[in-house]
Amino acid sequence: MNEVRNRRTRSGPSRRRGSPYPINPLRRLLFGYPTATTQADHTRLTKLVALPVFASDAISSSTYATQEVMLVLGAAGLWLTHPELYRTLPVAIACGVAALLAIVVVSYWQTIHAYPSGGGSYIVSKDNLGPFPGLVAAAALLMDYVLTVAVSIAAGVQNLLDMPIASRWSDSQVPVCIIAIALLCFANLRGLRESGTVFAGPTYMFIVLAAVMIATGLVGPIFGLQLHTGTVTRELPPYAYTASDHLSVFAIVAVVLKAFASGCAAMTGTEAVSNGIPAFRRPESRNAAITLTVMAVILGALFIGFASLAARLGVVYGHHGSYTSPAVIEQISGAVFGRGSALYYLMQFSTAGILVLAANTAFADFPRLAAILSRDRYMPRQLANKGDKLVFSNGIALLACAAVVLIVGFHGSVDRLIPLYAVGVFTAFTLSQSGMVRHWLRERGPHWLTKAMVNGFGALCTGIVLAVISIEKFHAGAWVVVVVVSALIAGFSAIYRHYAFVRNKLSIGAGVPTPHSGAHTVLVLIPSLHRGVFPAIYYARRLSPDCRAIHIELEPNDTQRLVQEWEANMGDEMPLVVLPSPFRSLIGPLMAYLDQVQIELPDNLVTVVLPEFVSTKWWHSFLHNANGPLVKLYLSQRPGVVLVNVRYFIGEPEQA
Amino acid sequence: MNEVRNRRTRSGPSRRRGSPYPINPLRRLLFGYPTATTQADHTRLTKLVALPVFASDAISSSTYATQEVMLVLGAAGLWLTHPELYRTLPVAIACGVAALLAIVVVSYWQTIHAYPSGGGSYIVSKDNLGPFPGLVAAAALLMDYVLTVAVSIAAGVQNLLDMPIASRWSDSQVPVCIIAIALLCFANLRGLRESGTVFAGPTYMFIVLAAVMIATGLVGPIFGLQLHTGTVTRELPPYAYTASDHLSVFAIVAVVLKAFASGCAAMTGTEAVSNGIPAFRRPESRNAAITLTVMAVILGALFIGFASLAARLGVVYGHHGSYTSPAVIEQISGAVFGRGSALYYLMQFSTAGILVLAANTAFADFPRLAAILSRDRYMPRQLANKGDKLVFSNGIALLACAAVVLIVGFHGSVDRLIPLYAVGVFTAFTLSQSGMVRHWLRERGPHWLTKAMVNGFGALCTGIVLAVISIEKFHAGAWVVVVVVSALIAGFSAIYRHYAFVRNKLSIGAGVPTPHSGAHTVLVLIPSLHRGVFPAIYYARRLSPDCRAIHIELEPNDTQRLVQEWEANMGDEMPLVVLPSPFRSLIGPLMAYLDQVQIELPDNLVTVVLPEFVSTKWWHSFLHNANGPLVKLYLSQRPGVVLVNVRYFIGEPEQA
Repeated sequence: MNEVRNRRTRSGPSRRRGSPYPINPLRRLLFGYPTATTQADHTRLTKLVALPVFASDAISSSTYATQEVMLVLGAAGLWLTHPELYRTLPVAIACGVAALLAIVVVSYWQTIHAYPSGGGSYIVSKDNLGPFPGLVAAAALLMDYVLTVAVSIAAGVQNLLDMPIASRWSDSQVPVCIIAIALLCFANLRGLRESGTVFAGPTYMFIVLAAVMIATGLVGPIFGLQLHTGTVTRELPPYAYTASDHLSVFAIVAVVLKAFASGCAAMTGTEAVSNGIPAFRRPESRNAAITLTVMAVILGALFIGFASLAARLGVVYGHHGSYTSPAVIEQISGAVFGRGSALYYLMQFSTAGILVLAANTAFADFPRLAAILSRDRYMPRQLANKGDKLVFSNGIALLACAAVVLIVGFHGSVDRLIPLYAVGVFTAFTLSQSGMVRHWLRERGPHWLTKAMVNGFGALCTGIVLAVISIEKFHAGAWVVVVVVSALIAGFSAIYRHYAFVRNKLSIGAGVPTPHSGAHTVLVLIPSLHRGVFPAIYYARRLSPDCRAIHIELEPNDTQRLVQEWEANMGDEMPLVVLPSPFRSLIGPLMAYLDQVQIELPDNLVTVVLPEFVSTKWWHSFLHNANGPLVKLYLSQRPGVVLVNVRYFIGEPEQA
Repeated sequence: MNEVRNRRTRSGPSRRRGSPYPINPLRRLLFGYPTATTQADHTRLTKLVALPVFASDAISSSTYATQEVMLVLGAAGLWLTHPELYRTLPVAIACGVAALLAIVVVSYWQTIHAYPSGGGSYIVSKDNLGPFPGLVAAAALLMDYVLTVAVSIAAGVQNLLDMPIASRWSDSQVPVCIIAIALLCFANLRGLRESGTVFAGPTYMFIVLAAVMIATGLVGPIFGLQLHTGTVTRELPPYAYTASDHLSVFAIVAVVLKAFASGCAAMTGTEAVSNGIPAFRRPESRNAAITLTVMAVILGALFIGFASLAARLGVVYGHHGSYTSPAVIEQISGAVFGRGSALYYLMQFSTAGILVLAANTAFADFPRLAAILSRDRYMPRQLANKGDKLVFSNGIALLACAAVVLIVGFHGSVDRLIPLYAVGVFTAFTLSQSGMVRHWLRERGPHWLTKAMVNGFGALCTGIVLAVISIEKFHAGAWVVVVVVSALIAGFSAIYRHYAFVRNKLSIGAGVPTPHSGAHTVLVLIPSLHRGVFPAIYYARRLSPDCRAIHIELEPNDTQRLVQEWEANMGDEMPLVVLPSPFRSLIGPLMAYLDQVQIELPDNLVTVVLPEFVSTKWWHSFLHNANGPLVKLYLSQRPGVVLVNVRYFIGEPEQA
């Protein structure tokens, strides 16, 4: 007894005894045995595991980036009118993007070391530029994580369904995408570490195969290797492009800019590493920086490689209405390895593999950002709850749902999703690097000027690119981003205001509220008089002398009997109030009566006691009028009324 | 105050004040304004309205009965091998069925007068033969009401989709059926009276048109009228029948018996009237008897009429695999009125009309029987609840669902549903009439011997027919009925046993239980200390001196602060127990602690007080950890624990 009473502190027996409680077997089966809060540190990642988890997004984007560049050039009909340009531009654009990538990476090194606890654009911008820019960055990032999932999955599935063996399912892009997202979501609910190991394979396999493919494709011919150029698409249906023989210089510049803007899709996912530093093994910053660099090198190399191969082969990619040419990567690997060869399939599968799990980056990152936002009270606090496996389960689920919506909304078409993509990324880049400039100017540590200039240059470049992209892609869908981002920001601040309101409403700074002094009126609902209601009646009597039994008259014929039984058993102990219900409604009369009581006895505390009886088998609940939930629902909307459930377990010894 | 206290009887202000409470506007829109219990009598039916409501089933069954007879004869290839038989047998069989009908009707007159309060087979068999035969009859009837809905709707839709203008939808039999059932269900939820008037039109229209058609078809030719015999089906694909030139007498007898068994489908729905006597205007029995007779005459006439027309025209009907010939009625009206003529369409639509609303008979009758069964505690008591419009809403919904299941299961094919049909009907007939024999032998009123003989003869005939049908149709699906009926009866008795068990557990015959004498331990769940939890804390203090604040430690870092705040504000008034939760589970530690308390203080009454706070806008609930419902769910499974919800309304003046 005392032993129980005095257990105020965290020491004492309850600590030892409290923990081993049963865990729902189904959950254990699905999600594995829960991880204890104290084991948090064990889920850190080695560089080797971190690379696939955080870099697969960036690396995989080389595939669809190449495709989008070819799409723009193809739509302009260059392959027909300016073949020479068509075979040089892709490489040039890829190199341009790679250069930009280098600048960004260098500038991010500094961020990573300045923010070892996680230097996401949100935190950096918020710390240095203030909350609003922070929220802009956050909104842009959230949007992008969703797009990462949608685009990567869509691209991966497109590559798979373009394979000869998959032709039969070529129409079921959307359902396949949704299944893939569901699987990813599940894998992540089982914990980051697992997903890291699960997903390491495809990434490395893709990197190796892509390297082999590029080498073979570019070097092979020198040694007289014959590429299977027959399977490459060299034509587009006339409606899928607009060709004009004499493109003005401006027109060409416009095309180049447009293609460059598309190519920037390759930079998506660069943010991931700096956002996820805490997930690295110690020393976090150093490991993160190394991982980031390795990632950037691989990404740049692959992008340039793919682009030059596509140019060399004269691949044409385009789509219009229902027509879409095979994915560019599919065409390339078809040409290099031979469509249908083992290596070809291997390449296709690992491409799909890395793309599908690129989405996994977002699954690791979106929930983390959401959790940070919810700790700052900009998002619902459930997003900060850690699940059985110490992952932010709610964030994971939320991301999956949003991505499915996008996939369905855009019919799972990569080319229609991409234009929404780069805007957000570059907004985040620009904001975070401007933030870093502010940071150095404020801190003035060693070499602050150099550091500031490095970040400043990064901010400048990304800023210019952002402008270009926004203009080039506005009609193609960038406007959607503007709308969504503004909506998100509005939501953030509404939520923030609400939490602030609740906080000050609930704060006990101003002292604790005073106890209610008034009398206590207790109403017991009596459907009919049987043993099951007595515990409730007795409980009510414990609560107050002013107890009333309430019977709502659904069946007038039964009333007389009830009244007599009541008089016989309880008559002198508690008054019975019969409320007629001409329309057989349970709620109406009860509420009307409560109004009346609260009007007549404004100072009284009112309690409604609800007798329920619980039966032994689940199906029994179908055999009894289940009005309880309804009454509870209505009472829960009603201020000034306390609800008491007294349950009677049939077959159990009596209570109360 | 006193005024409120002393309102024990049904008189007094609450009666007047209690009734006018708000009614959910959506419900009013859907189901109209609720009918007061006192208006029950107003929904009685005049004979003119009762005929369509109760007789449409029987009358409409003439259409598919004819079709089923032709189906059997057609499948035997008689139209090819024994044309003369093929042109006489249908009429003979129809006359046979009509004769049987006459016998049954006469025998039912006596039932109706002996059981003015509703002489369904269930009641009659139960009263006179005992509960088990009663349940058999009940199960058979319930099964048949579901089949009535399925068969009638399927037949009606078949007729519609056979029309030239509907050819485009000819494949969507099932969905159309489901829509029709949904509409019926809705119409009935709006109340019997309404459905009566809504459905009177088509019935009478069908009767008139059918009469016209038969007259024209049979008499017309005598005056040289040319029938459009071109559109009649005269052939079946070879796989759809088995013809042999030399049919032995036995073979022919077998075919005739089989055809007769099918023709008995015409008798379905005869039960309806005697089951629904209470719905008639006074004098109920007399009106019901008249209605029954009128119905029988019409039914017999139409059946014979259709059969002779079909025979005269040499209509052939059959189906196999995906092939199905046009519905027989459609062929006839096509031949008589000319396919595509106004009268033809009128006939088709009113056929569909009466068939669709024949299902309505079941909607009027199934719920009534279900309610009777639930009053006798053989079915869940919710089935006895009357809805806003004084109809048994749950029964109506249940019937609709069951019918949809059948439609889907049998792909909406009339010919596959019919074999399940007649068995149940004739089981009911036989049982109820045997019951009546017992009744007369017991009562020995005036003319008891004659009456007993009349019913006995009825029972004998229907019994023989039942045997024939069961044998002829067993493989075609009658066995399903046996299975379902047995399952239903098993269910009935399980439910009955449960209610009996509960009843004696709850009965206060043995005296009322004694109040709980032990002390009272109260646990208040404290997620964190804010104004919102104080009402709960104070309420708990009202309940017992042994109050404990329970904090389940989901976030160890927050604990220290909570403990300090608690010491500062409540420390000396209530102990705070911190339950560690290494796996961040809310439920586990709480349950473990409750176990412990209940072990340490076995005699104590334990109450858990759950503070909840309710916000001003609905979406706010997404912004707060909603653990309340989970805790409630688990506690509701736990004997010996009372649950108290103390709600704190943000923005409201404080309570407790």
